[in-house]
Amino acid sequence: MGNYGLNIWGSNNFVIENGKVCINKGMKPALYDIVEEIRKGDIRGPILLRFPHLIKKQIDTVYNSFRKAKVEFHYNGEFNAVYPLKVNQYPGFVKNLVEIGKPYGYGLEAGSKAELLLAMSYNNDDAPITVNGFKDKEMINIGFIAAEMGHNITLTIEGLNELESIIETAGERFAPKPNIGLRIRLHSSGIGIWAKSGGINSKFGLTSTELIKAVSMLKDAGLLEYFTMIHFHIGSQITDINPLKKALREAGNIYAELRKMGAHNLKAINLGGGLAIEYSQYKNTLNRNYTLAEYANDVVFLLKTIANQKQEPEPDIFIESGRYIAASHAILIAPVLELFSQEYTEGKLFLKEKNPPLVAELLDLYRSMKPGNALEYLHDSIDHMESLLTLFDLGYIDLQDRSNTEVLVNLVIKRAVSMLGDKNLTEIMDIQERVQERYLVNFSLFQSLPDYWGIGQTFPVMPLDRLDETPTRSASLWDITCDSDGEIGFNLNNPLFLHDVDVTERNYFLGFFLVGAYQEVLGMSHNLFTHPTEAVIRIEDKDPKGYVVEGLLESQCIQDILEDMDYDVREIQDNLHERIEKSPLIDDKQRKHILGEIYLFLNDNGYLKTIGKEGE
Amino acid sequence: MGNYGLNIWGSNNFVIENGKVCINKGMKPALYDIVEEIRKGDIRGPILLRFPHLIKKQIDTVYNSFRKAKVEFHYNGEFNAVYPLKVNQYPGFVKNLVEIGKPYGYGLEAGSKAELLLAMSYNNDDAPITVNGFKDKEMINIGFIAAEMGHNITLTIEGLNELESIIETAGERFAPKPNIGLRIRLHSSGIGIWAKSGGINSKFGLTSTELIKAVSMLKDAGLLEYFTMIHFHIGSQITDINPLKKALREAGNIYAELRKMGAHNLKAINLGGGLAIEYSQYKNTLNRNYTLAEYANDVVFLLKTIANQKQEPEPDIFIESGRYIAASHAILIAPVLELFSQEYTEGKLFLKEKNPPLVAELLDLYRSMKPGNALEYLHDSIDHMESLLTLFDLGYIDLQDRSNTEVLVNLVIKRAVSMLGDKNLTEIMDIQERVQERYLVNFSLFQSLPDYWGIGQTFPVMPLDRLDETPTRSASLWDITCDSDGEIGFNLNNPLFLHDVDVTERNYFLGFFLVGAYQEVLGMSHNLFTHPTEAVIRIEDKDPKGYVVEGLLESQCIQDILEDMDYDVREIQDNLHERIEKSPLIDDKQRKHILGEIYLFLNDNGYLKTIGKEGE
Repeated sequence: MGNYGLNIWGSNNFVIENGKVCINKGMKPALYDIVEEIRKGDIRGPILLRFPHLIKKQIDTVYNSFRKAKVEFHYNGEFNAVYPLKVNQYPGFVKNLVEIGKPYGYGLEAGSKAELLLAMSYNNDDAPITVNGFKDKEMINIGFIAAEMGHNITLTIEGLNELESIIETAGERFAPKPNIGLRIRLHSSGIGIWAKSGGINSKFGLTSTELIKAVSMLKDAGLLEYFTMIHFHIGSQITDINPLKKALREAGNIYAELRKMGAHNLKAINLGGGLAIEYSQYKNTLNRNYTLAEYANDVVFLLKTIANQKQEPEPDIFIESGRYIAASHAILIAPVLELFSQEYTEGKLFLKEKNPPLVAELLDLYRSMKPGNALEYLHDSIDHMESLLTLFDLGYIDLQDRSNTEVLVNLVIKRAVSMLGDKNLTEIMDIQERVQERYLVNFSLFQSLPDYWGIGQTFPVMPLDRLDETPTRSASLWDITCDSDGEIGFNLNNPLFLHDVDVTERNYFLGFFLVGAYQEVLGMSHNLFTHPTEAVIRIEDKDPKGYVVEGLLESQCIQDILEDMDYDVREIQDNLHERIEKSPLIDDKQRKHILGEIYLFLNDNGYLKTIGKEGE
Repeated sequence: MGNYGLNIWGSNNFVIENGKVCINKGMKPALYDIVEEIRKGDIRGPILLRFPHLIKKQIDTVYNSFRKAKVEFHYNGEFNAVYPLKVNQYPGFVKNLVEIGKPYGYGLEAGSKAELLLAMSYNNDDAPITVNGFKDKEMINIGFIAAEMGHNITLTIEGLNELESIIETAGERFAPKPNIGLRIRLHSSGIGIWAKSGGINSKFGLTSTELIKAVSMLKDAGLLEYFTMIHFHIGSQITDINPLKKALREAGNIYAELRKMGAHNLKAINLGGGLAIEYSQYKNTLNRNYTLAEYANDVVFLLKTIANQKQEPEPDIFIESGRYIAASHAILIAPVLELFSQEYTEGKLFLKEKNPPLVAELLDLYRSMKPGNALEYLHDSIDHMESLLTLFDLGYIDLQDRSNTEVLVNLVIKRAVSMLGDKNLTEIMDIQERVQERYLVNFSLFQSLPDYWGIGQTFPVMPLDRLDETPTRSASLWDITCDSDGEIGFNLNNPLFLHDVDVTERNYFLGFFLVGAYQEVLGMSHNLFTHPTEAVIRIEDKDPKGYVVEGLLESQCIQDILEDMDYDVREIQDNLHERIEKSPLIDDKQRKHILGEIYLFLNDNGYLKTIGKEGE
């Protein structure tokens, strides 16, 4: 893995030059150099970099793929896309996205009141807004306001009660009305008819019986002309394209049938999201079996076929892909703070004149190991270790004996690995897995990679420099939270090798890639670590460095975090000051010094900084 | 489950009276009544209630259990406890906890800079502070400041580099110094020596070899007198007490050995946290196999035995239990918004004069079902449904046929369940599982029960009233996020039955219990839903209702949420106003009305409110 799988997940967004990961655009600035520049401003801790040119690339790709597919199949329906705000609502992303999407009429999707108000504020004129999720009367009112403001908005109905509320609201409000979409419940998606996401038991959508009822309700209320869209969603990060094809066939027929029932303004099918991206760094663990071109072709071809079969107009196509648009734009860069080696050399042995018999035997095993007996001796050593640890617990040997046991067993393991490592024995592989180097990394896994904790989603990781040196250490990564789950363990199926570095001499940064989707808003404040420092990086040939750092936002300071939790910050300051003032242990000069320090700490962010001699 | 397992998980904190869950204290106020009172103030959405008397109960229980154990075994060491802030840092909890813990000298544990500053501000005078987790030079400095302020603070060392930083800092700062603890790495805890939490590969702790090195470093620096504690932690929510016993034996011997090596001020063993609470509502899924009394007795007895064996003084005992203290104090109360029934009655059939042959067959099957053929006919019906759905996808039958198929198959299932339900056939059980009622609940699972999403932790759930009526519906719960993971599905091992209610006539609230530990700070803002409205409820006999509502904090309004994400709220308002002003679709009077509405929506929280006729 010389390039850490960049050819698999990187989409040509990066190149390696002079041992550094560089942005594959313009003057190809290195991520390492960008981070070092930001850190010149005394910024420490993890940094999230956003690259608007990568947002643009994804939007361009989506629109171009569908444009090509439409041309290829002579498709008459329109293609539209909206970005689902839930994937990333942060302004550093959303405001760039809206600006970049303007020429395409790229719209926004909202799933809650807050998201809907955001969409109404920032959406491009005439670009569509869709609203999914459960809605109360207030949210339906906000949707009507959007229509009254002139937004091209469609409210997707999740249940017949919502439709009743809409009909009621339509009677109460002013002339302009939002379009109405009906979420359909598919039987075909997922695996089997009872599948959770999209299946008959799905959280969302109307059955055929309910669809028929909905159309008759709309007709009775004189609102059938506002029914313009059906919507479905077969799940996030679709790894296989076949369920989508099945769903399209089903949805296409429902579209045609509803039109035949009198829904003449029904003209669009919304496929929801689900377009996958490739997170894997290894060919044996790929996340998807299709390309965007294939996806677009399948959608267009299938919908055309069904429409023609049923002699209905080819429907407009809406997609709501979020992950595909957002994931690649953000990279989390986290400094390695420290390596926790357990280097057991012979120099660490402090043997006594008279050692416990099993320690003496361990020493014998170590000294007389040969390739022929290595595996046997390894087994014996581990067995002896278990016995010796038990003897310690029972009070029969002392701490120095225990330490010698640790050292000797590790020396035996090391020797066995070097003698047998090329034999690929499961046992040796297992042991190699255990002897990784632990890299303590200045970030919170809960805050910055919540999907790793929640659903085991892996993200590409690589160091930002030294890529011209072979990484020799099998690595596991520890975050700085006080939680044993805050660890990305070494994984034989997905191994990570890093360099043997001295971080007191030179910084070593890890990049976590493809973190732009979901990871920010799902971030958890475990141990009160908050959203990392962020910056927008604009690739700019006119700049001598090839890029411009914009919108640098430092991670929240401790005082602000506490205020957000509804602490009275004045009270906290007063308490601290009072205790300092009344402490009998310090003199007045020291008191003054300490007050100043407390002020600085409260106004600094909570991540770690100085470890070792040179700082982080 | 007439009482929803209250006898298993409830710890006598609640009783059922007049069909309502009541607080088992004072005048026994009903949760339902408390919630309705809060809602009189126009509060809607989920509400988190905190009960300080339940914090007090847990603290009392911990101290009393250890007091009794010490008396029983004539134990000479002291007992101390600290509360780990990471479990719940919210002021409504922490400030009550500190006040309640004062008579015991109950202290605080911090795992990050923010938590440490919080502890230094609120900790009771002379109560201990312990500091775990990775520490940089700044955090160590804050620890020294705490000592300089007069706090009784112990910094737990996680690695030798930290110890170096402490020695360096001690040389630079003033006279007072924090105590030093060493985190030990145990081989015995967890399952097998390579276990993740606490084992040899654990994220935290020093090996024997490192412990010996640490003592010699402290000796050389003249700081050995500050080394007072060893610390270990075998994991959270310990379900089985045996690993703890093993760990105690190991730690006890390490304590004795370190003292023999010259660490004369080493006088305490800190067991960390891990004390489990019972979350289960069913006897077959219990979460722990021990009581607190047993835990206390085991700890005291084992440490006494080892100390006596090794002829060392009996160590002071520290524990850092957080979950045990915090979990029970908070209850999340969420209103049911709507029931998504799929009641298929014969009245929903709209058969044609000539139906597709398979639909006609379905009808025959339904009409001629008897107990003797029910299972066979059920299989046939599901088979026919699959075929009919395929025919629809291929354009051979229409939407009305498809709807008739849905209705008929559901009628067949219902009849089969009623004919065969008592036979306990796996198949029928499975199908019953599928035909649950979906309760749409006004909360976000990601925000309020993150451990359900992340680690599958279940929490006790029950309705707050109607407990004198038999619940008849097998229920699955949907939250209001746009995410198919936002669901607590019906689980045969842990089934939830609820009442068949009409929420437009009377409110139906669900209580999620034992959510006071971790769920708040791990809360995710998916779809921008934030921390729910909270209130502290003080049980007060002098009050005519039996309780006082204190510290009511309404869930953040949309405008504040967006501001926290670094949106410029003025810009959002201006954008919205501008679009409203320039809309050609409305007149001036309407414009004014809409501007007022937008103002209200931006200043309201994002949860749902009015569904149906009577409001939420």
